[in-house]
Amino acid sequence: MNKAPGVVHLVGAGPGAPDLITLRAARLLAQADIVFYDALVHPETLALAERAEKIAVGKRCGKHSTLQRFINKRLIDAARKHAVVVRLKGGDPMLFGRAQEEIDALRAAGIRCEVVPGVTAALAASAELQISLTRRGMSRNVTFVTPRVGAGEEASDWIKSICNADTAVMYMAAGQSSAIAAKLIASGLTAEVPVVIVENASLPGMRQTATTLGELQNTTECLTHGGPALLMIGRVFAQAKRAELPLVDQAVVQEALAAALFA
Amino acid sequence: MNKAPGVVHLVGAGPGAPDLITLRAARLLAQADIVFYDALVHPETLALAERAEKIAVGKRCGKHSTLQRFINKRLIDAARKHAVVVRLKGGDPMLFGRAQEEIDALRAAGIRCEVVPGVTAALAASAELQISLTRRGMSRNVTFVTPRVGAGEEASDWIKSICNADTAVMYMAAGQSSAIAAKLIASGLTAEVPVVIVENASLPGMRQTATTLGELQNTTECLTHGGPALLMIGRVFAQAKRAELPLVDQAVVQEALAAALFA
Repeated sequence: MNKAPGVVHLVGAGPGAPDLITLRAARLLAQADIVFYDALVHPETLALAERAEKIAVGKRCGKHSTLQRFINKRLIDAARKHAVVVRLKGGDPMLFGRAQEEIDALRAAGIRCEVVPGVTAALAASAELQISLTRRGMSRNVTFVTPRVGAGEEASDWIKSICNADTAVMYMAAGQSSAIAAKLIASGLTAEVPVVIVENASLPGMRQTATTLGELQNTTECLTHGGPALLMIGRVFAQAKRAELPLVDQAVVQEALAAALFA
Repeated sequence: MNKAPGVVHLVGAGPGAPDLITLRAARLLAQADIVFYDALVHPETLALAERAEKIAVGKRCGKHSTLQRFINKRLIDAARKHAVVVRLKGGDPMLFGRAQEEIDALRAAGIRCEVVPGVTAALAASAELQISLTRRGMSRNVTFVTPRVGAGEEASDWIKSICNADTAVMYMAAGQSSAIAAKLIASGLTAEVPVVIVENASLPGMRQTATTLGELQNTTECLTHGGPALLMIGRVFAQAKRAELPLVDQAVVQEALAAALFA
């Protein structure tokens, strides 16, 4: 009699900082026989999988990525050999990942699958900025969206979803932020709408740039440095500091001050 | 010389299951001198704060809640006495909580504040349903929203945000689900739009009910049992099972099967 197949756990690694993973995810990593991980997963997070074979299936916007069908097949093969298979994804697995394709493929192959939710980047950015996405009296809703600039008319739903939201957070958008700002202004948003671009939310290299749709439309320089970035739009962001502030430096300053005070 | 004030940490407790809290949140709870917690926080989560004084500031939709200004004052007073103050909130602190009011009050009082993001209920529900909120080819955006049924015209933005989203998740809405469905149909959504109501996402008592806007509009019975519930709307939910399935029972069945197989 063949051994029963293992379970594949689709696990959210959180926004970046290794201590923003859940207790459940950490426990599963410690138990894992094999881990398939995305390019953006932090090395310390991966190190939690002490006894596992670790396989990069680098999915990174605009860079090399393993074919999705090939990933599906490897997950199925792994579950036939191992009891605990972890598919580790940046952020939350069910938001802008291709989890559904993996779940459907696993089900079709008769493999049991579990999903462990994670902290998504928008919430980590909101926490670092200390700006609520749904500030009372100003915003009762927030939309999370990926844009598709330059595609046909049928692809304009992302614009409608932003124009009709109190607060919007765009994932995988920073590389085309000027074109996005132009589209939103052409669709009726005013040039004064506040924008914050947050790169590397929750990591030491986090950067925030506060601007407006109008300024962003006319910006030719690249405002990010290659890290994953969010474009955050809406009235709630009016209070963001109007300067590029690597927040880690503030923390360093505060630590230094505290050390001096207690010296 | 007076002691420097402590730091107030606004911490997300996650969707309900105690192991869906982050490592950072668990560490802060273990270090906390005093914890102010919401009604929905799990007792096992609270137990992580071994050495802390624990104070309920019961915020629960429709039930008794301490006045927000009184909570703000208690946080400030606590930071003047203790080094590590934790304000523990269900889900993520920056989404549909009143974190901003607490942050602003702490800043005005010169108290340092940090925010620890959490897993929000919508993502836990998506994980349990195994339905991606942004399924490729079907949904490129998701809106999180609280409704305001019966308020004036100026409050109709929540309807627009839902009608223009591919996927929508409504928080604090289940008690008025029939009226909400009627409003959305009157605003142009079709009666066939799939809906799933998820109660107690991530907890053993989780329940899901799959339906449509049209059916929901005509439902007079209460579909939930007093736990926190989400109303999830959109094409992606067409694949939800059309029955009320307490998912925990499935897990119990699977465990029993596994036990029998290996007996």
